Amino acid sequence: MSEVKMKGKLAAEASRILANISTNDKNKALDAIVKALIEKKEAILAANKKDIDAAITKNISKALIDRLTLNDKRINDMAEGIKMVINLPDPIGEVISERERPNGLNIKKIRVPFGVIGVIYESRPNVTVDAAALCLKAGNAVILRGGSDAINSNIALTKIISDAIESIGFPKESVQLIEDTNRKAVAEMLCLKQFIDVIIPRGGSGLIKMVVKKATIPVIETGVGNCHVYVESSADLAVAENIVINAKCSRPSVCNAIETLLVDKKIAKNFLPGLFARLKSAGVEIRGDKFIKKIDPSIIDATSKDWKTEYLDLILAVKIVSGIDDAISHITKYGSRHSESIVTSNAELGEKFLREVDAAAVYVNASTRFTDGFEFGFGAEIGISTQKLHARGPFALPELTTYKYIVHGNGQVRP
Amino acid sequence: MSEVKMKGKLAAEASRILANISTNDKNKALDAIVKALIEKKEAILAANKKDIDAAITKNISKALIDRLTLNDKRINDMAEGIKMVINLPDPIGEVISERERPNGLNIKKIRVPFGVIGVIYESRPNVTVDAAALCLKAGNAVILRGGSDAINSNIALTKIISDAIESIGFPKESVQLIEDTNRKAVAEMLCLKQFIDVIIPRGGSGLIKMVVKKATIPVIETGVGNCHVYVESSADLAVAENIVINAKCSRPSVCNAIETLLVDKKIAKNFLPGLFARLKSAGVEIRGDKFIKKIDPSIIDATSKDWKTEYLDLILAVKIVSGIDDAISHITKYGSRHSESIVTSNAELGEKFLREVDAAAVYVNASTRFTDGFEFGFGAEIGISTQKLHARGPFALPELTTYKYIVHGNGQVRP
Repeated sequence: MSEVKMKGKLAAEASRILANISTNDKNKALDAIVKALIEKKEAILAANKKDIDAAITKNISKALIDRLTLNDKRINDMAEGIKMVINLPDPIGEVISERERPNGLNIKKIRVPFGVIGVIYESRPNVTVDAAALCLKAGNAVILRGGSDAINSNIALTKIISDAIESIGFPKESVQLIEDTNRKAVAEMLCLKQFIDVIIPRGGSGLIKMVVKKATIPVIETGVGNCHVYVESSADLAVAENIVINAKCSRPSVCNAIETLLVDKKIAKNFLPGLFARLKSAGVEIRGDKFIKKIDPSIIDATSKDWKTEYLDLILAVKIVSGIDDAISHITKYGSRHSESIVTSNAELGEKFLREVDAAAVYVNASTRFTDGFEFGFGAEIGISTQKLHARGPFALPELTTYKYIVHGNGQVRP
Repeated sequence: MSEVKMKGKLAAEASRILANISTNDKNKALDAIVKALIEKKEAILAANKKDIDAAITKNISKALIDRLTLNDKRINDMAEGIKMVINLPDPIGEVISERERPNGLNIKKIRVPFGVIGVIYESRPNVTVDAAALCLKAGNAVILRGGSDAINSNIALTKIISDAIESIGFPKESVQLIEDTNRKAVAEMLCLKQFIDVIIPRGGSGLIKMVVKKATIPVIETGVGNCHVYVESSADLAVAENIVINAKCSRPSVCNAIETLLVDKKIAKNFLPGLFARLKSAGVEIRGDKFIKKIDPSIIDATSKDWKTEYLDLILAVKIVSGIDDAISHITKYGSRHSESIVTSNAELGEKFLREVDAAAVYVNASTRFTDGFEFGFGAEIGISTQKLHARGPFALPELTTYKYIVHGNGQVRP
């Protein structure tokens, strides 16, 4: 039996035990992981060093090596992340609804774990710990498949997690790592429907596309964010400027940062020069359409490719629009249904934007950077879902569950 | 541009209008369809006759021709079905939750339509009408792709629906049929992510497997039901007998009928002879394991293939189990996560079964035949979902929607 199939089978068995473990015991297991991570820091760093050395030999980019690197602070951050999960309410067991039918059947819809969750990710080893903690808290077993660059780190982390939870009586197969770094193992995992209930890819758009294409298991897509701010003609321009600067510059590498700014033609001349000065001094490269170039000839030309691109970098495309319908139609055509914001003093136009823009989170007069589990008050999340099925937007503990109907009868048969 | 792509684009445009139409107007559109179906009965029957004639020429099975056939009663039934959808509450616009954050952001989670739903089905032309009515009521545009055997009926029905809704001001592209009967059109539809938000296959397990394999659009799987009744040793045997007869015989061709009966070894000798007599007189073929054959040597041998098979016919596999854990482990191994029932007088064992069996609907002392939108009190449904993502069990109007977060601010930026 292949590693993937064997671990799938063991995960399914573990999931049946996990589904009926109390909140208190789940929190104890998470606490055991926190302690083990801190205690075994040296072993984690040693394994991580192997990965970093291999990456340096392979001449891998600095940015990637940074993502791969663990250090004292990052290990402490992982432990702190688990503590936050311990403090989140347990979604399992909630009676979502209950009804008594005329024939006497009592039907309860109750929240239950998915069973087995497969997580496929790239080079950040912290995903190993974050995903395991969230899945466990929601009563799920998890099968992890990280990037091959982080294999030594991930083996070390998974062993620490699985030993820690076993020490307090959990099945150690509740958290497993696929150690086979061959891509065929991923392909096999994506179709292991008999054992895995849902697949969550965490990473860039290439990874997500591959997973969506190959998986027969249902997938929850996360993270591609081609987000916009639209500055409407009635906007308070000081507010608009702050929102654009925040949405672009506060953390350009994340999915809720904006990539394109849409500006109403009526205010462009007034608004843009001051904004451009601030953006440039923050190191942002601006790409504009021909109308923008009339305002500032030094701006680089935007092509239609720019409207589609998630830069994840200090680059901003800027486009003049003729009004709200033009703005909405640009967002509809190019947006990734993640986060969209309008800055306006006209309440009616604000409501129109909220109503007509199709995205996980739609804002009036606020930065798109708030689309985040903590900022929404949901706590740690596994990502931001950009699909409409099951989970949309911050994808936190309740979305790591499903439900079932339990029906009490006293001999009812269907007429 | 291909037919599929063009219709996808038009559906996406229509969906943006549909998302903001009032309940009253949606009900008017449904009412217009009811009237048009009745008025244009002759045209429907004429188109249907073409399909039936072609099917007869192609020597297609009687059962399939029956599924394909429309008549006066079946058209009336379709119209009645729409009237029931008119009476269902509109899920759209519901504020699912609302929160005020410490920074003053107001975050509302509101129910919105998916956008565009693709429905792929086989030869029953009534699916054309049922699916269109449910999708419209939930504010979605729909792209239909029925089996090629029913193409003339489906063209006629879709034209009637789309003319009827256009007459009261709806975009006529709210309901469209893919008329290209080539399989390539289905393959194209399953990957048209830029325009279709969710795919629902309705049909046999072959169709569902094909859709799951090829689709990159999220799929909601419906309908495969390998269901069980487990008669536990403390069961009231008269109750158990009625439940088994109802679950097997009342409508063997549907997904919530049982395929395998599990009987505790302690009561097998007492329980089975009477039950077998009733089953045989109802025309049921019984297939049993070696222990069953000791009780009734005339029983046909069951092989391991029987435990996996959804007969959808008057056939019942019967297996002796050593107790509840044996029963649950058989269900875990072979069940399709649809509907499972225990008959018992032991409340504790009943709760154990409800807790440990992983299925959309789990029953104590009732027939599995109740897993149905109307029986659960949800009204018309598009099918019974056997997956855990998004919709589980009866898949009715609320499950034909998604949600989005709308956020009101007054200039907030993220620190």
